[in-house]
Amino acid sequence: MHSEKAAEKVVETPAVLIDIAVAKKNIARFQKHCDQHGIAIRPHIKTHKLPSMAKLQIAAGAVGITCQKIGEAEVMANAGIEDIFISYNILGTGKLQRLIELSKRCKLSVVADNGQVIDGLNQAFLGEPFPLEVLIECDTGAGRCGAQSPQEVLHLAKLIHNACGLQLGGLMTYPPMDDQNSVNSWLSQAKDILLEKDLPCPRISSGGTPNMWRAQEVSIADEHRSGTYIYNDRSLINAGHCAVEHCALTVKATVISRPTQTRAIIDAGSKILTSDLLGLDGYGLIKEAPEAIITSLSEEHGIIDLSETTWSPKVGDTINIIPNHACVVSNMVDYVYLKEEGKLSKTLIAARGLVT
Amino acid sequence: MHSEKAAEKVVETPAVLIDIAVAKKNIARFQKHCDQHGIAIRPHIKTHKLPSMAKLQIAAGAVGITCQKIGEAEVMANAGIEDIFISYNILGTGKLQRLIELSKRCKLSVVADNGQVIDGLNQAFLGEPFPLEVLIECDTGAGRCGAQSPQEVLHLAKLIHNACGLQLGGLMTYPPMDDQNSVNSWLSQAKDILLEKDLPCPRISSGGTPNMWRAQEVSIADEHRSGTYIYNDRSLINAGHCAVEHCALTVKATVISRPTQTRAIIDAGSKILTSDLLGLDGYGLIKEAPEAIITSLSEEHGIIDLSETTWSPKVGDTINIIPNHACVVSNMVDYVYLKEEGKLSKTLIAARGLVT
Repeated sequence: MHSEKAAEKVVETPAVLIDIAVAKKNIARFQKHCDQHGIAIRPHIKTHKLPSMAKLQIAAGAVGITCQKIGEAEVMANAGIEDIFISYNILGTGKLQRLIELSKRCKLSVVADNGQVIDGLNQAFLGEPFPLEVLIECDTGAGRCGAQSPQEVLHLAKLIHNACGLQLGGLMTYPPMDDQNSVNSWLSQAKDILLEKDLPCPRISSGGTPNMWRAQEVSIADEHRSGTYIYNDRSLINAGHCAVEHCALTVKATVISRPTQTRAIIDAGSKILTSDLLGLDGYGLIKEAPEAIITSLSEEHGIIDLSETTWSPKVGDTINIIPNHACVVSNMVDYVYLKEEGKLSKTLIAARGLVT
Repeated sequence: MHSEKAAEKVVETPAVLIDIAVAKKNIARFQKHCDQHGIAIRPHIKTHKLPSMAKLQIAAGAVGITCQKIGEAEVMANAGIEDIFISYNILGTGKLQRLIELSKRCKLSVVADNGQVIDGLNQAFLGEPFPLEVLIECDTGAGRCGAQSPQEVLHLAKLIHNACGLQLGGLMTYPPMDDQNSVNSWLSQAKDILLEKDLPCPRISSGGTPNMWRAQEVSIADEHRSGTYIYNDRSLINAGHCAVEHCALTVKATVISRPTQTRAIIDAGSKILTSDLLGLDGYGLIKEAPEAIITSLSEEHGIIDLSETTWSPKVGDTINIIPNHACVVSNMVDYVYLKEEGKLSKTLIAARGLVT
């Protein structure tokens, strides 16, 4: 412990620290849950964007990983990850060419929710030795992408099934977090319609972290994609899904100004904590004083209201913050500090900032 | 124009595009305004984080630049910028060592608003051949950092003046945007108190973009620090400070899904547009259809509500978005595309993501 504290002292703030022991416990806890219920885990790497973390997840039993951008998948394939699901509609000549290259280096699957995407994927993969596995994205109530009805799923399934460059991989949804039953019923209907028409439905993929302990309620699903569970964050604490001790990612900041008795300014602003509120008050949980509120952020400053706390940090004190949303914080910095067995290692976030 | 459109077609979305002609006009317009009023401009480079843009600003007449982090200043000094003001309290051994190195490569000034920061700066610069120029940050009403009263300014000024490693550089404020008069009166009182005690006050620095056309009303100030004015953004359009044609930075995105008649999904989410609302509804202005609303973002998806527009984009269409807040967008991507004379050049944002 002593050496860890000494090591942390030389970290220039603001900085993102990851407690590896906590992350490993989070991985093991959800893996055990899914093993008990016979659900495969395919973690979403957006939370960490680190090949080393993806490998920990796979070593614990994950069947592969989920990415949303080709750039992230390229980094993960380069690092040796063998089974990658890009849960995103891919469009455009440049991206399709990258997708072909990627498909030669890993077991790849993607999604589609419309004819244009299916047509583009098919045109790209027609001349390739193996067809590309394509799952149909279904909007089971979250209101983002996805086919709107099991009938629409059938229409898209026929397009994929009849496309020589493609292979129908099943169904995928990013579900609403509060109603597992209707998700299950939606996907069951869609699967039944496919099977009635002799169309294959080899894999059904659901996901989400807030609903992950109820993943088994979507009993029709074969796999669950969670991202945030590896680190957890303040939004998940507030929703009752985890406790402070389950949060692996913290932002270390320094108090740089104490203009008044009730105001402290820290060197962490939206450039590291982001403006994500996720419905919460304030921009993070200060571990040293949970009752102090980070009331506002500018890019390089965080403003803390001390009026409801007896805690009175001095200029130069460092504090540790659990951010509202862990995933977006990983995207703000080039490096994180991995904490393990009393040592800190500064590590490049290899898949950070890859927007395409 | 034809070649520009052809060049843009190969840009993989989402992408940040900068129209150099517009940026140059924005620079020239504010330079002219300040020249007419005898105010120096010291632009805040946080908006662009690009040495090439800083050089355009200096070529147009800026006296130097403003940074908030040493990392940004290091990049700018490496690129040959000669006069750098870090408007931030610097604390900690590592950062002070970097500050010493930086001071050897440019004319450097910093701020302080408390004794601990002054003491740290002084200890660091005591053995150096030249004292470090330190301005006193004043809280003239914005409620962030800064001395709370002219009396507190006097106390800090004495500390700096008596510190052998430091040199009193004057006053700095990040003012409230709506009351230039009280800012002027606050700073005038503080200056008077210093001069009464025979303390120097060679420079008074104010700033802000929403208030920039009224910079001259803070008549006591010698210089104005603006950042966003070079690109402008939706927040400044909505506040009446500029028009759409003054916005140099746009985010190019592709429609990847049309789940319903009133919903379009684009490939730009909070990972490029950020969650910054700045008091606005929606996450950006769609140039092709200003009445369409980007109602919510997840990291990689933007959801557009089409219910108030007859515009009906197809899957594969590209759109151009003026973000709510330009500065934070520059921090999200490794590269921007600079558009000039029909050509596009992909350019590394050299000072991106430098949090320390």
